[in-house]
Amino acid sequence: MLLIKELDKSKVGESISLAGWLRTKRDSKGGFSFLEINDGSSFKGIQVIADQNLDNYDDVKSLHTGASLKLTGKLVESPGKGQSFELQAESILIYGNTDQSYLLQKGRINFETLRESAHLRCRTNSIGAVMRVRNQLSKATHDFFQNRHFLNLHTPIITASDCEGAGQMFQVTTLDMDKPPKNDLNKVDYKKDFFGKKTHLTVSGQLNGETYACGLGRIYTFGPTFRAENSNTSRHLSEFWMVEPEAAFFELEENADLARDYLKYCFKSVLETSADDLEFFDQRIEKGIITKLETLSDAEFTRITYTEAVKLLEKTDKKFEFPVKWGIDLQSEHERYLTEEIFKQPVIVTDYPKDIKAFYMKLNDDEKTVRALDVLCPQIGEIIGGSQREENLDLLLNRMKTLDLNPEDYSWYLDLRRYGSVPHSGFGLGFERLVQFCTGMSNIRDVIPFPRTPKNAKF
Amino acid sequence: MLLIKELDKSKVGESISLAGWLRTKRDSKGGFSFLEINDGSSFKGIQVIADQNLDNYDDVKSLHTGASLKLTGKLVESPGKGQSFELQAESILIYGNTDQSYLLQKGRINFETLRESAHLRCRTNSIGAVMRVRNQLSKATHDFFQNRHFLNLHTPIITASDCEGAGQMFQVTTLDMDKPPKNDLNKVDYKKDFFGKKTHLTVSGQLNGETYACGLGRIYTFGPTFRAENSNTSRHLSEFWMVEPEAAFFELEENADLARDYLKYCFKSVLETSADDLEFFDQRIEKGIITKLETLSDAEFTRITYTEAVKLLEKTDKKFEFPVKWGIDLQSEHERYLTEEIFKQPVIVTDYPKDIKAFYMKLNDDEKTVRALDVLCPQIGEIIGGSQREENLDLLLNRMKTLDLNPEDYSWYLDLRRYGSVPHSGFGLGFERLVQFCTGMSNIRDVIPFPRTPKNAKF
Repeated sequence: MLLIKELDKSKVGESISLAGWLRTKRDSKGGFSFLEINDGSSFKGIQVIADQNLDNYDDVKSLHTGASLKLTGKLVESPGKGQSFELQAESILIYGNTDQSYLLQKGRINFETLRESAHLRCRTNSIGAVMRVRNQLSKATHDFFQNRHFLNLHTPIITASDCEGAGQMFQVTTLDMDKPPKNDLNKVDYKKDFFGKKTHLTVSGQLNGETYACGLGRIYTFGPTFRAENSNTSRHLSEFWMVEPEAAFFELEENADLARDYLKYCFKSVLETSADDLEFFDQRIEKGIITKLETLSDAEFTRITYTEAVKLLEKTDKKFEFPVKWGIDLQSEHERYLTEEIFKQPVIVTDYPKDIKAFYMKLNDDEKTVRALDVLCPQIGEIIGGSQREENLDLLLNRMKTLDLNPEDYSWYLDLRRYGSVPHSGFGLGFERLVQFCTGMSNIRDVIPFPRTPKNAKF
Repeated sequence: MLLIKELDKSKVGESISLAGWLRTKRDSKGGFSFLEINDGSSFKGIQVIADQNLDNYDDVKSLHTGASLKLTGKLVESPGKGQSFELQAESILIYGNTDQSYLLQKGRINFETLRESAHLRCRTNSIGAVMRVRNQLSKATHDFFQNRHFLNLHTPIITASDCEGAGQMFQVTTLDMDKPPKNDLNKVDYKKDFFGKKTHLTVSGQLNGETYACGLGRIYTFGPTFRAENSNTSRHLSEFWMVEPEAAFFELEENADLARDYLKYCFKSVLETSADDLEFFDQRIEKGIITKLETLSDAEFTRITYTEAVKLLEKTDKKFEFPVKWGIDLQSEHERYLTEEIFKQPVIVTDYPKDIKAFYMKLNDDEKTVRALDVLCPQIGEIIGGSQREENLDLLLNRMKTLDLNPEDYSWYLDLRRYGSVPHSGFGLGFERLVQFCTGMSNIRDVIPFPRTPKNAKF
């Protein structure tokens, strides 16, 4: 059996078999029917002509949208518009039909309703296209980093360090929560828990990733991460996938190059492989998205420091909701103004004030800023955040002291600075944000197969 | 800067820069030193000649194993054995040294000790080689399935179905375990938990994967899965990565072909790309592993039914610890006898008794066996388990009734059989078992970066 994706003009004239699901059916009075079949392998389906010569033509005529079929016949040139070939069916095997209770036959359905049937929604044009593009971005991610000799690293999901500090965490336990064992202080006795201590789901693989970069050179993680924040917005998931490369001997400049090249590689990859899916997004979801991705594939990605960015923002006449001054965290409105109004392309902002960034970022000589970088894109603002890491043990210990972090909790992380410390850098990208950016989908819940959000872990 | 992996004879004569860690140093009386440098990009390092012309030669002489350096100089042909070129250093930048407290300078260290320093162990020959092979197997997995038009699918990690039945599960919560909210029955009130119900970590992405296969055709997952079993063995992890392809319109035969082709692709890929790492395993970890992988890359993978396998085992004179008769689950000793003694190659056993297999496997016409398959390999026994899935709604409901499963808990799974049901099949492979098989490492904790096992979630 062939996939619809595998068909091309060279196969015209051949006898082939296909299988898929019925999208639409038109019965003609002349004793034949047009079946539009899709098998999920590509946006486009194929038109199949069924006629009374089929043994089971009456059964075929009674099929509903969503019925599953195996079709055998001859691939012929099509006289119809918008398709170059069609299948003249010689036999149709009916695997299964549907009935009136099937959700996906009632015309266009809004995304909210589809989300309630997340097990069926991949059968629609829109979610099918999203998931193919998501797959392409996953493939591009692996290809890009493998080509540059980054090793795919599987960092742990369950972690006993509650010190990552990047957000609220989910607890993982095997204790009986109705009757947990208690210690002398009448608190839950985590020594009796599965791992012998309190454990959580990871919020980032970075610290673990650094350990392997400081030995194998270049690594990247691509795995699930978790936030137990009660944010019920179209931009937040409780479970999402992150891409986190980390490279020994990369300083801030190489890190910025890597981030830019990675994004451009992703955009190009989608443009080259997913034309039909993008065409759909361009028509129905975000007008102009193809031009946007083409433009970004060739963009320079302007680089400026945070200090320069603040000066530029202070100079404009634009009234921001949050007034700009040196020291503030840039808000979405500022990020968008930089990319959309001033530079009209992505901007990599570097060297942020140390007080608004994480403890592990490398201190600049000015002792006020750190070697952080954010990649800002039009429409969405920050898509990548990263930094060169502090490789100097004393400076890192100083910084931890200021922030009241206990060095003992980080002894293994500090060992990287004790033994053969090297300059190294990395960044993180929220994979679903990238999928949103490349599809135009406005709700993040529609770009992951089964979204997890507050009060929702269905399927 | 170049990676050591990127060096070849064509660069001899060029001035280049490298960076890495010092593995060994030999100071000659003639006023020069040989430094063996490794950067993690390949098993082989490079020999660097440093001499008194360097400004900081005295500092270089005081370096310990593990020191981190940037080296600039000319790549020259090497007179030494076992290396074709070496670097004549013109400058050496010392990033960091180590001291006597550094674990990795004291000769060969056993794997148990290394496990206690999982943040440093990737700097050793053995674990470095394991992690490069692991990466190669990850790359091969993505390449294999992408080439065959399988979409990479990210199935959820947090799940509210406690009905997967494949093993004990970890609970995920944000409730305060010291003072959880209680309901009228004085039980923990999970309505107040983050997701509004009791949730766990997934034990398999299969059921979710089926939903997407029954719409997009071919998918594969490659993600972490969890077992809360208190098994402290060299074969079990509490957190491990699984590869689970699922394909619409694949019956048992195509599923077996896919499993065989996937394994052979992995073996070939490692042989082609990881010669130096495999050489090390062949010498130090498992004699003959290269020949083993070469043989398996060309093996036929014999197929027999469970019933035939039982007959063959009953006929032998071999005394098994667990006597063989139709209906038993095959034990490791039986699996190994089949592959190592009878067939001397991998064996795909199909059509197991329904009572020892999962509810979702397709019933054969004999009503006694199901379309299950296990791929058995010499040494390790089962490496892949899978099946064709039951696509007939009534048969599936019957089976669930027999097993006292509540159809309401599976309504979305049953929908796949209600609406356009299709024959479909898939399998699961425990990724760490594959890495063990391709490296010869005997303890599964040494083939994953940071192992999670009972009482251990360090780092």
